[in-house]
Amino acid sequence: MFQNFKDNLPNILVVNDDGITAPGIRALIKFIKPFGNVFVVAPNQSMSGMGHAITINSTLRLNSYNGGEDVPEFACSGTPVDCVKFGAKLLGDKKIDLVVSGINHGSNSSINVIYSGTMSAAIEGAIEGVPAIGFSLCNHRLDIDFSACEWVVKTIVEKVLAEKHNCFCLNVNIPYLPKEEIKGIKTCRQAKAYWKEDFEERHDPNGQTYYWLKGSFVNEDSGEDTDVWALDNGYVSVVPVQFDLTNYKALQLLNF
Amino acid sequence: MFQNFKDNLPNILVVNDDGITAPGIRALIKFIKPFGNVFVVAPNQSMSGMGHAITINSTLRLNSYNGGEDVPEFACSGTPVDCVKFGAKLLGDKKIDLVVSGINHGSNSSINVIYSGTMSAAIEGAIEGVPAIGFSLCNHRLDIDFSACEWVVKTIVEKVLAEKHNCFCLNVNIPYLPKEEIKGIKTCRQAKAYWKEDFEERHDPNGQTYYWLKGSFVNEDSGEDTDVWALDNGYVSVVPVQFDLTNYKALQLLNF
Repeated sequence: MFQNFKDNLPNILVVNDDGITAPGIRALIKFIKPFGNVFVVAPNQSMSGMGHAITINSTLRLNSYNGGEDVPEFACSGTPVDCVKFGAKLLGDKKIDLVVSGINHGSNSSINVIYSGTMSAAIEGAIEGVPAIGFSLCNHRLDIDFSACEWVVKTIVEKVLAEKHNCFCLNVNIPYLPKEEIKGIKTCRQAKAYWKEDFEERHDPNGQTYYWLKGSFVNEDSGEDTDVWALDNGYVSVVPVQFDLTNYKALQLLNF
Repeated sequence: MFQNFKDNLPNILVVNDDGITAPGIRALIKFIKPFGNVFVVAPNQSMSGMGHAITINSTLRLNSYNGGEDVPEFACSGTPVDCVKFGAKLLGDKKIDLVVSGINHGSNSSINVIYSGTMSAAIEGAIEGVPAIGFSLCNHRLDIDFSACEWVVKTIVEKVLAEKHNCFCLNVNIPYLPKEEIKGIKTCRQAKAYWKEDFEERHDPNGQTYYWLKGSFVNEDSGEDTDVWALDNGYVSVVPVQFDLTNYKALQLLNF
């Protein structure tokens, strides 16, 4: 479909969950452009916390978008996972060689991987047999500086492309530190932590009750091999992720 | 919060993704009532395919609902995972002892576990340390007969409550067969299958393009220990599910 794409270069889909205008995806497009035939399909609005949702009860729109980066870009009304599915469709007979998702505004370490639209887009790539990386910077603000992420993106993308046969799906979280203070890149397991939910109760102008979902992050995992530990100690965390949810240990305990 | 709840009985939250009025959840409420203090928090509309989405960009409503079953019921504007979080809040100082989700109208075997709101509600229970079961009947129609599910629900709920210490999270799929034709209950692993996406293109009355997400299920996993095999051969499939997405095999291959 894209006439400028070269057969000898990898086809790279860029996606995110903060929406196509977010500074994080604009930075990622700049960093990834030298690596191949880059195209973008991203939500037309924020889709944070959408997990692995797909749009089956309503219709989808897809419009071309000019992001000023001289790569094909499309804004989609759906979820991050919908965007990956559209990406595969847009390439037609060609195959996506790499999905990069992000750079998310805020951490996706530990249990956040399961709520995260950023990581669900990467996991959708993996389900379709495509190497995939989700990048997150541990700062929620919209006006943050992504420059320290550039060497992280380049280092990890180079490795994943060089080891295509392993079809890695990686959850990469980057501490919000100046480049010289980042101690390195650590491979980790997902910390066993969770969100203790809370709801803030408010009243609308008609006196009716509504709620905002809030929560506090509870980490009872003191292991030094976790992503939370790595980030707390100044490292970039890299957790390889899978989509086989079978609990094989429990499988041995369970008989009917 | 619920004055009729008895201290010596387990507190059981019922949730689904097809919405609080769906025949599947109405059947599940009837089947589960004898097991303890039952209460219901379910979406006020269909939330199929919502995966592990949570509502963080908009507000939430929660209204009591009279389902005629003499148990506390609440209709929630949010996702299945939001419903589980509300369930925990509603109990206050008490703890949920079991989350049951469903009965879903349609299969959630294999990779569907990751897209499924039904199973994501169960997984949210597991994340919060609560045993959880998602039930699905392999027929999408709304007017189907759930009576053959009763013994499946009862058998599996009894086991999970009896083995609370194992904190099982189970993905249960039930073939759409008369009870006497169901061969039994089989514990399985998730089949390695995926959806090959497709989009149906249409035009709105203004001539603008929109899409419906479609797809065809591709199963290249011929193992006889999978959920797809069990269902195809007349068994109820039970896959124990986890929420640690770390790919420990890949962790050994990956170094920076």
